[in-house]
Amino acid sequence: MAKNVLILPGDGIGPEIVAQAKRVLTLVNDQFSLDLTFNEALVGGAAIDNDGVPLPEATLEAAKAADAILLGAVGGPKWDTNPDFQIRPEKGLLGIRSNLGLFGNLRPAILYPQLAHASTLKPEVVSGLDILIVRELTGGIYFGQPRGVREKECGIREGYNTYVYDENEIRRIGRVAFEAARARNKKLCSVDKANVLEVTVLWREIMEELAKDYPDVELSHMYVDNAAMQLVRAPKQFDVMVTGNMFGDILSDAAAMLTGSIGMLPSASLDVDGKGMYEPCHGSAPDIAGQGKANPLATILSAAMMLRYSLDAGEAADKIEAAVSQVLDQNLRTADIMSEGMQEVSTSEMGDAVVAAL
Amino acid sequence: MAKNVLILPGDGIGPEIVAQAKRVLTLVNDQFSLDLTFNEALVGGAAIDNDGVPLPEATLEAAKAADAILLGAVGGPKWDTNPDFQIRPEKGLLGIRSNLGLFGNLRPAILYPQLAHASTLKPEVVSGLDILIVRELTGGIYFGQPRGVREKECGIREGYNTYVYDENEIRRIGRVAFEAARARNKKLCSVDKANVLEVTVLWREIMEELAKDYPDVELSHMYVDNAAMQLVRAPKQFDVMVTGNMFGDILSDAAAMLTGSIGMLPSASLDVDGKGMYEPCHGSAPDIAGQGKANPLATILSAAMMLRYSLDAGEAADKIEAAVSQVLDQNLRTADIMSEGMQEVSTSEMGDAVVAAL
Ligand SMILES: CC(C)[C@H](C(=O)O)[C@@H](O)C(=O)O
Ligand SMILES: CC(C)[C@H](C(=O)O)[C@@H](O)C(=O)O
Repeated sequence: MAKNVLILPGDGIGPEIVAQAKRVLTLVNDQFSLDLTFNEALVGGAAIDNDGVPLPEATLEAAKAADAILLGAVGGPKWDTNPDFQIRPEKGLLGIRSNLGLFGNLRPAILYPQLAHASTLKPEVVSGLDILIVRELTGGIYFGQPRGVREKECGIREGYNTYVYDENEIRRIGRVAFEAARARNKKLCSVDKANVLEVTVLWREIMEELAKDYPDVELSHMYVDNAAMQLVRAPKQFDVMVTGNMFGDILSDAAAMLTGSIGMLPSASLDVDGKGMYEPCHGSAPDIAGQGKANPLATILSAAMMLRYSLDAGEAADKIEAAVSQVLDQNLRTADIMSEGMQEVSTSEMGDAVVAAL
Repeated sequence: MAKNVLILPGDGIGPEIVAQAKRVLTLVNDQFSLDLTFNEALVGGAAIDNDGVPLPEATLEAAKAADAILLGAVGGPKWDTNPDFQIRPEKGLLGIRSNLGLFGNLRPAILYPQLAHASTLKPEVVSGLDILIVRELTGGIYFGQPRGVREKECGIREGYNTYVYDENEIRRIGRVAFEAARARNKKLCSVDKANVLEVTVLWREIMEELAKDYPDVELSHMYVDNAAMQLVRAPKQFDVMVTGNMFGDILSDAAAMLTGSIGMLPSASLDVDGKGMYEPCHGSAPDIAGQGKANPLATILSAAMMLRYSLDAGEAADKIEAAVSQVLDQNLRTADIMSEGMQEVSTSEMGDAVVAAL
């Protein structure tokens, strides 16, 4: 049965890295007779330039129709100063997440042994690091209403946003996290600010409720400030972490950076049926766009996650991941993960190497 | 002119560490003829146990009447499960901050050269680290209304909080940060999430406006997720950072932990007139309370900040800071900062050493 993959190159280094991931996907499509077809559409700044909006109707329709989506990255200084807040690249990304109900964001922070030196942390603190952050992606303060800027008395402006979760939203992401923990080392840490924020008091309560259905998983709670500290102090204490949209944004980036090689980290954003959008954890890096310097491996590994979670092609995913490990063993490095004695390669040369390894 | 210092020991290790700081204050009070008088009051869990509320009226009155306040720490598992959200230790702390208008929170993250090895980060990444985080402390989502847990349709509960700042609140904390940057290395990084949250779009706008009054300070902006990453990747790029209450809570703890010795870090919370509350950055550490293991130096350094900022006794502050540096040079260490070849001392022995050095 043919399956359709929508490719959204986006902005900055997006097109370059996605191009390499597409080569890899095309190859395993043949090797494993996956019967994948590929479409491409505009999103983010590229869509603003072409259609005047960050998420054109045609892109949204294509995203809804697709079986899975591979995204490069969105955003750049060119569009950052747009006075209309709705016409920013990020709104394209947020629009897909929310319109497609991609509430379950999986962000692994894994230290590749070959890149252990790349971390700014001492080897003993991070060696073997393997954390999975489960971030709620379609609720919380990112989407809460009311929101905006209004005038108070005497013309004083005031900006406001609403941090809101209902128990169903919490339960839904909680289940994803408990299931993930069950499939890993059975430790789940739920991160909140229940000593200050009522919305996270409810969060904690629902996590406690859910824990009864997962007696094999050890649930703990941590305040977000402490979690940020513990990620720096002793990150290996964590197995799976679950948290809301905003805290997840912050903590997953901090966790990713612990590895020192954010150019290696993929992510998945899933709906209730396992359909998903896949993208690298890093951003659009406009400063190096078009120079062939970007690391395509996070996007290639995102393609692997896509094959595993949304396209029922776990074997192809395994093979891609093994190929990535192999090119690292061959000492090939893009600039972001370069170190002494290694061989520096360009974006497309890295793609060549993965294709060769496959 | 006599000045009154209110001492709030609080919970956990609070009483032990505050006792050592009080010895130090009493001594410099004599040495510099500062004419300080001391009062003590209950706050947090200790106040709940004694008065049924975390911030008794008498404590609040004493706080208002004092010229400066020295706080140990509040909180502990004993009170964490209190079903009434208003009767939690943290509410005592938040109540003082808001009732006294202590909006300007200064949190230095400094790496003591003697403790460089204590960091989990590589020496070259953190040596010489000296960041000041300026956190807004009486607004934002911590205090925003409306807030609570309510029932939506069909009895589904929903928790909600409001993230709100008006332009005056932003301007006020912005000025504190610009002034601090001017007195340091003239680099200010304002942290927001202006690509998603309207309230921080206003935040960024006001910071830009203020920048015109401080042409000698270089202002930059960073998204909070990136800031969390950059603190791990290259923390020495920062001089002063300014941000709202919630982001400041998270980032200041992460920054503090970069030093590996959070037991060394003081903080100040100031009102418009420079009156303030001073407290260590670390928490109440209930697990080691009463064992003489706690590090009193952050509290002693908080007392030094108090002398400098609220009691017009900069010389006494300098002397205390020099004494702390001296005891570190003498290789004395409490358990939290202990390392090979050093001499482990108890809380009161550390206090003895600082007193001797004075
Ligand atoms: C680009 C931005 C809107 C987005 C977010 O904040 O969710 C990004 O930081 C991410 O984490 O995917
Ligand atoms: C105890 C808690 C309410 C407090 C806060 O979140 O502000 C603490 O974490 C801090 O940073 O001073």
